[in-house]
Amino acid sequence: MSDQHSPRLPTTDPFDDDKLREECGIFGVTGVSDAANFVALGLHALQHRGQEAGGIVTYEPVDGFHSARRFGLVRDNFTRQDVIDGLPGPLGIGHVRYSTAGSKGATQIRDVQPFFGEFSMGGAAIAHNGNITNADALRRELIGMGSIFQSSSDSECIIHLMARSLQKSVPERMKDALRRVEGAFSVVAMTRTKLIGVRDPLGVRPLVIGRIGQEGWALSSETCALDIIGADFVREVEPGEMVVIENDALLSYRPFEHKKSRFCIFEHVYFSRPDSTLNGRSVYETRSAIGAELAKEAPVDADLVCPVPDSGTPAAIGYSQQSGIPYAMGIIRNQYMGRTFIEPTEQIRNMGVRLKLNVNRALIRGKRVILVDDSVVRGTTSRKIKEMILDAGAAEVHFRIASPPTAWPCFYGVDTPQREKLLAATMSEDEMREHLGVDSLKFISLDGLYRAVGEANGRDPKSPAYCDACFSGEYPVAPSDQIEKGFLLKAAE
Amino acid sequence: MSDQHSPRLPTTDPFDDDKLREECGIFGVTGVSDAANFVALGLHALQHRGQEAGGIVTYEPVDGFHSARRFGLVRDNFTRQDVIDGLPGPLGIGHVRYSTAGSKGATQIRDVQPFFGEFSMGGAAIAHNGNITNADALRRELIGMGSIFQSSSDSECIIHLMARSLQKSVPERMKDALRRVEGAFSVVAMTRTKLIGVRDPLGVRPLVIGRIGQEGWALSSETCALDIIGADFVREVEPGEMVVIENDALLSYRPFEHKKSRFCIFEHVYFSRPDSTLNGRSVYETRSAIGAELAKEAPVDADLVCPVPDSGTPAAIGYSQQSGIPYAMGIIRNQYMGRTFIEPTEQIRNMGVRLKLNVNRALIRGKRVILVDDSVVRGTTSRKIKEMILDAGAAEVHFRIASPPTAWPCFYGVDTPQREKLLAATMSEDEMREHLGVDSLKFISLDGLYRAVGEANGRDPKSPAYCDACFSGEYPVAPSDQIEKGFLLKAAE
Amino acid sequence: MSDQHSPRLPTTDPFDDDKLREECGIFGVTGVSDAANFVALGLHALQHRGQEAGGIVTYEPVDGFHSARRFGLVRDNFTRQDVIDGLPGPLGIGHVRYSTAGSKGATQIRDVQPFFGEFSMGGAAIAHNGNITNADALRRELIGMGSIFQSSSDSECIIHLMARSLQKSVPERMKDALRRVEGAFSVVAMTRTKLIGVRDPLGVRPLVIGRIGQEGWALSSETCALDIIGADFVREVEPGEMVVIENDALLSYRPFEHKKSRFCIFEHVYFSRPDSTLNGRSVYETRSAIGAELAKEAPVDADLVCPVPDSGTPAAIGYSQQSGIPYAMGIIRNQYMGRTFIEPTEQIRNMGVRLKLNVNRALIRGKRVILVDDSVVRGTTSRKIKEMILDAGAAEVHFRIASPPTAWPCFYGVDTPQREKLLAATMSEDEMREHLGVDSLKFISLDGLYRAVGEANGRDPKSPAYCDACFSGEYPVAPSDQIEKGFLLKAAE
Amino acid sequence: MSDQHSPRLPTTDPFDDDKLREECGIFGVTGVSDAANFVALGLHALQHRGQEAGGIVTYEPVDGFHSARRFGLVRDNFTRQDVIDGLPGPLGIGHVRYSTAGSKGATQIRDVQPFFGEFSMGGAAIAHNGNITNADALRRELIGMGSIFQSSSDSECIIHLMARSLQKSVPERMKDALRRVEGAFSVVAMTRTKLIGVRDPLGVRPLVIGRIGQEGWALSSETCALDIIGADFVREVEPGEMVVIENDALLSYRPFEHKKSRFCIFEHVYFSRPDSTLNGRSVYETRSAIGAELAKEAPVDADLVCPVPDSGTPAAIGYSQQSGIPYAMGIIRNQYMGRTFIEPTEQIRNMGVRLKLNVNRALIRGKRVILVDDSVVRGTTSRKIKEMILDAGAAEVHFRIASPPTAWPCFYGVDTPQREKLLAATMSEDEMREHLGVDSLKFISLDGLYRAVGEANGRDPKSPAYCDACFSGEYPVAPSDQIEKGFLLKAAE
Repeated sequence: MSDQHSPRLPTTDPFDDDKLREECGIFGVTGVSDAANFVALGLHALQHRGQEAGGIVTYEPVDGFHSARRFGLVRDNFTRQDVIDGLPGPLGIGHVRYSTAGSKGATQIRDVQPFFGEFSMGGAAIAHNGNITNADALRRELIGMGSIFQSSSDSECIIHLMARSLQKSVPERMKDALRRVEGAFSVVAMTRTKLIGVRDPLGVRPLVIGRIGQEGWALSSETCALDIIGADFVREVEPGEMVVIENDALLSYRPFEHKKSRFCIFEHVYFSRPDSTLNGRSVYETRSAIGAELAKEAPVDADLVCPVPDSGTPAAIGYSQQSGIPYAMGIIRNQYMGRTFIEPTEQIRNMGVRLKLNVNRALIRGKRVILVDDSVVRGTTSRKIKEMILDAGAAEVHFRIASPPTAWPCFYGVDTPQREKLLAATMSEDEMREHLGVDSLKFISLDGLYRAVGEANGRDPKSPAYCDACFSGEYPVAPSDQIEKGFLLKAAE
Repeated sequence: MSDQHSPRLPTTDPFDDDKLREECGIFGVTGVSDAANFVALGLHALQHRGQEAGGIVTYEPVDGFHSARRFGLVRDNFTRQDVIDGLPGPLGIGHVRYSTAGSKGATQIRDVQPFFGEFSMGGAAIAHNGNITNADALRRELIGMGSIFQSSSDSECIIHLMARSLQKSVPERMKDALRRVEGAFSVVAMTRTKLIGVRDPLGVRPLVIGRIGQEGWALSSETCALDIIGADFVREVEPGEMVVIENDALLSYRPFEHKKSRFCIFEHVYFSRPDSTLNGRSVYETRSAIGAELAKEAPVDADLVCPVPDSGTPAAIGYSQQSGIPYAMGIIRNQYMGRTFIEPTEQIRNMGVRLKLNVNRALIRGKRVILVDDSVVRGTTSRKIKEMILDAGAAEVHFRIASPPTAWPCFYGVDTPQREKLLAATMSEDEMREHLGVDSLKFISLDGLYRAVGEANGRDPKSPAYCDACFSGEYPVAPSDQIEKGFLLKAAE
Repeated sequence: MSDQHSPRLPTTDPFDDDKLREECGIFGVTGVSDAANFVALGLHALQHRGQEAGGIVTYEPVDGFHSARRFGLVRDNFTRQDVIDGLPGPLGIGHVRYSTAGSKGATQIRDVQPFFGEFSMGGAAIAHNGNITNADALRRELIGMGSIFQSSSDSECIIHLMARSLQKSVPERMKDALRRVEGAFSVVAMTRTKLIGVRDPLGVRPLVIGRIGQEGWALSSETCALDIIGADFVREVEPGEMVVIENDALLSYRPFEHKKSRFCIFEHVYFSRPDSTLNGRSVYETRSAIGAELAKEAPVDADLVCPVPDSGTPAAIGYSQQSGIPYAMGIIRNQYMGRTFIEPTEQIRNMGVRLKLNVNRALIRGKRVILVDDSVVRGTTSRKIKEMILDAGAAEVHFRIASPPTAWPCFYGVDTPQREKLLAATMSEDEMREHLGVDSLKFISLDGLYRAVGEANGRDPKSPAYCDACFSGEYPVAPSDQIEKGFLLKAAE
Repeated sequence: MSDQHSPRLPTTDPFDDDKLREECGIFGVTGVSDAANFVALGLHALQHRGQEAGGIVTYEPVDGFHSARRFGLVRDNFTRQDVIDGLPGPLGIGHVRYSTAGSKGATQIRDVQPFFGEFSMGGAAIAHNGNITNADALRRELIGMGSIFQSSSDSECIIHLMARSLQKSVPERMKDALRRVEGAFSVVAMTRTKLIGVRDPLGVRPLVIGRIGQEGWALSSETCALDIIGADFVREVEPGEMVVIENDALLSYRPFEHKKSRFCIFEHVYFSRPDSTLNGRSVYETRSAIGAELAKEAPVDADLVCPVPDSGTPAAIGYSQQSGIPYAMGIIRNQYMGRTFIEPTEQIRNMGVRLKLNVNRALIRGKRVILVDDSVVRGTTSRKIKEMILDAGAAEVHFRIASPPTAWPCFYGVDTPQREKLLAATMSEDEMREHLGVDSLKFISLDGLYRAVGEANGRDPKSPAYCDACFSGEYPVAPSDQIEKGFLLKAAE
């Protein structure tokens, strides 16, 4: 059902249309004087994980739970005194989102997390990063029993499963619920007194624990959001672990059957912020290492190494340092880019890309240029960038891509086009080079990528250390809703 | 839980604080090209029944159900092209509300009806006028079984009861649900193909049926909303009746045990618009008859009969015509009154009342004035008006009230103060006259009121034709949630 | 030049399109702690004189002059704490406007008064009610000398003439300026220390003086705005008088050549609020007297006298009392009427009028109805009302109009259609009756109107006591800009 | 006078408080089908020159001039269809601004350019980048003669001088006006048929000419705004030149006495976008050359060269390439930074800087870091950055600044703090190093900067090629208003 509560304006620009989209960032704090401010700051630092909407829930003893959910950026909503004043209390969680798996049309405010449910023993709110691969089946089952869904979000299943659990406490009900759920999930939840964090058994999505001074705790998708509030990084929530923080004590549970972890390798490539650390490694340094690995695998004689801003920057620096070819800002990004502009008629119809990016023409003219980008999804942006560079008089254009060809959709919380829209699903590397019209095109190998993220021996094909389904087509959790809808696994092709 | 979705501004003025408040107006249409426009017009005509918020749900086959819910007046929200464009389809229902019974604090957008639920066999939306007197008990029971409530509204119980019914069709599920519900309810509901109307067995709240041209149907709280869309009045939905309209046919059911009807007598006194008809009688003429009856019961020698605008006007005209004392507009209402003004400091602190009302000083000076008002609730406004009239130099002030003393709260969908705040609950008529400081004060008798509404023999104390609990303290349905909270029935006092 | 500063929404409803429009209300105070609040209240009470936009200027010694100008109603803009906080000081003036003579298209925010100018000896702000009939010529002259106009308003000429005066003080500069100006004007102005009020020599537009407690003063278009702030009415500013209030003293000047006054008679008929007094007479009582006069001049046998709400109400009461025919509310006005509704397609295209007005069908059916309205301008609304009444089953419809036929446009500050759009300019009374399709149609005579406003002998054709150009075509000040554009005076027709 | 027209929200972040601010960007086009879209795109590309507000004026023959002026970013205002639709025509100019010299308090919408004036022979609009150093004196003179100023902007003097000129054509009036004006100005203006561009005799601020296809022309502050609309760069408007474009012909005039040009050297250092060219040189390459020069002048043994993002980036790349020390992104900028956040109480009071910038902790730990920034103004940000870097565990911190010490305010269109707030005005380089608490601090020499911008022999002290008053205190135009207010020139200290 489409539902209009409040005006909603697009906040993302059309260029980013050619990127994979992390769907969510989650954050929670307890033991501070004013949780809402901390959560707002944390979500602001996680804004790259979702720009469409955000929400915060807090609890304080007098008036109970408080919630605010808004379309738009954290900075535009959760910096307002009136909004923050309506979110009192020492305990709170929050969520930023890009879009919900399963939603047919536009996102509605009721799809915006955290979700809240009142149970017999009290209320609970949850924020979910990931995707539940059996959500359709669960939803049918729950509706059949009389549950009323308010959103089109897969995540709402969790709160209904919790409402129907026969367990007495919220953490026990959450265990009940999450054992029914398949797929990838990192969850931050809260009751009146507890802050709870969980990661699925494979640990596909990140979740870390931080300490705020002597008394406060934080849970966050990434470490960069601990930095912004001055919290100290403690450790990651481990795959398959549930942590319950109450009265300043952290208790750890293992509610699921043990499995070997499969962290999302694309978090290293693109999703996480370069100033975060994953598994103790600086994301920036990993990306720089990917660039260096790429320079070894795919060298080319050229005058300049230029990043496609901003995501290709660390890999371009690594490529330049490994190859000795000078690094330069050949493409400049307009920092004020926002909503779509109304394009000025036929005269300049296809100029779109220059709204966001402009070539440093005087620098590029006559040069052989290596362009480093993080990934190629549909290829539409890559083509436009190539044209801009050639228009500016470049002698040669060489694309170097800091990830293997993206040939398979993600079903674990990332917004990917349908398989047939992925350039690498329908073309070989050579066909792609021709399609893009560049002098050369090289992707890093899957082994090369594994080496760059710290697996010295590359990928172990029998037991890969990461989820790399978008590159390999090997899905660590069967996407059962998708299969029901007709998706063919690699083996079945 | 407090929940912030969108900015919300007060739309009612503080003066009306001293009136009883009808909580809702409901409206539905089917068989028209653009239901949303019809519903918007209908709700606009019912705006006097609730100014805080409104909502519309429509259905069309391509994209399914559509919903828009907003704080503020119909004219400010549902006249916007973008809002109406988002509500396509030939079938729709709507709701305007004042405030929800049961809400502890400020109304949230999620409290705004219509409510929607998706069931195994398809979705349904409902709009409810009235109050469920066992809502607290039902809510506890439903939460205990795992239902998740989204609002603090008593009306949401109905949709959860429907979701859990084992019946196959929406109308059957609605019968199941409404048989569990106690209290007063007029309901307009819709499925993908059906428009449904129901009144509780006592028929406390109004609901009428209209015909739009040859093919369309409408359901409305009052006839004035049929007039605005050019629909023809067909008949009232009868107490205890459920009508189901589909494919241009209207089917009638009687799902409840038969009871003698008890329509709210205050609808005649104040709630309904003067251009509506109730039971075939013009509300305007009924009110004029009340004034005439009052002139017979409580005559007084005076120079002018003036209404307290605007609700006292028809009774004042009737009083004037019966008594022969000239009718005059002694008090003028500012038609641009809206939100609270910031008052200009100490200098004019208590001038508040003149923002909305001003005395026609030149007219009033030296005159003996009869002021006719529809009711006295707290008495605060009556005192201010008396002061204004005396300030203007009136020689005498006589209050004549077009209803008996309001001594008991309503639990059937009207917002009344707690019993101890009702002036007539703590004072005799004489004490009230002294408290208000007027030369005389007379209320119409309960028998007189019954005569004016058409009961030639007055009130039958054994089997009154109306619900008059607010005057008599005789509640036709035991208010069980209230009794649980400690409310003492008249018999128990 | 069209100029977009801020979003602007229509605030008046299309039905009032068939009324003459007073263009402005003006208000000023000095000697109070917080002038802006007083001015906001005063403008609110004068809102009927202009609903499109409003502005307030205040002065306090630290930061100087402050100004806020907004589209929309006073209650929606000048009740906001942030707006009022930005308008500190003990001295202030304000203005509400409908639309500016001379503006080709939509009003711009820069057309909204008060206007402000900085002169060598300090600044001044002015608010003007009326119309300058030689504004075009003055504007050409001033632009030729290098003045830069910011608005399309005729009133801006005054401030430019003041800026170019060689006098040393603001009051002297204002005298200089106003001596160059032809037409009708009531002006409220302020310097850093003075509150100034002026009326043109004929006193066409009203302006009154009030006292606030012991130390404050107010100037206002009408007395009803004194009532709202609890000020005492002192006297009217006399035609041709300038009052200068400073340090609690009021000085009176006579800057113009003496002329016999010609107050606008339509202020009695329609513009002023019924609770104001004009020349010591209650406007309500004058209108009631007009109705009584009309009953004498144009009696008819009928069952009911009904006003066209709300402006016809006092005259209908007078007609009823004189004729003995019962007064009744046959037409009910929707008090929540506002912006234009989107009309629901062909099915109910011409239903527009019912949005604002609805007939009390049960009351009207079979009755012979006298409808009393204040005036007929284009006649479009009268036709729709007649149709509504007949649709409801009235046996006969008789129109009685509380003013003579409006056959000439006003050039003194009232927005009238071009002459050829005025029904009475192209049709005789009999043709109008036929055009409207009613059983009878009668206007009060011009002599009858003069009698009702207190001229016992009716109108003195040699030296009429009022400006009645809209009825008589006799313009007391030659409309020179209009004549230059081709307007034919009555003598020239 | 403070004047409230519309809500205004801060759009710049508090961190940029420690930068010099270019006050304006100007842009104009003629000979295109829809000038407003072109101007909007051009202003978007010039947004770095002013983020507070923007305005566009267009002309088309039917309705004349059209204007829209708004607070906020171009992307938020001039991408809206309703705004663009209100700006029809083939000829238009626009302006983005930071803040106005001379304004005491907050900017008002009436301070937002372009300014418009109606003259006897038709209207004209102007947009001005720069600052008029005798504006106070001109304003006093003009007010004395009866001109009414609407804004507090120095630029408004130009239009009043034009209004009072006795010349017959707008270009001649503009020459008259600009000959009275002292200071720095690049002006884009328009009449109904002409697009006009002028630079002051010293050519302090930039202005370039572009060609749009075969028929259109553009004038722009920078070349990057030609790129965004696909225009070809033709040449710069020369210092002291006026160009008048009409009917596709460009005429060049030299209205001023010839002087040696003194272009603002800070445009090379910071103001212009890195993808613009100035005098045929890529700004990016110039900044990289400044970094290389700095590496030669001020080498230091270290592990990493990190830019202070984003303005220090090109110089850091140049420093790295010259020195051989690896370039790395040690500080990451949050790309979603916007309005001020509400800071979460005492616990994290001084964390502010991390909202915008975060250190790449894992990368920095234990390293000797060279930080390259474009300039030091107050030094407040430099201190915070140093602390962040040390907190992250850096072994050493060395600041290298790509401009000489900023010791003097700019009076030619750049917003600089008062002299005593400039760190370099009160401290030696050594004192600054100590104040900032870094291991070393070096600024490029003035000669080094001149070499990097292409003057092989460095600065000629007798006749410098640039305006470098902010570094040298040598003002090429005496700032007469400032001297009157007590500013002491270097010679007078």
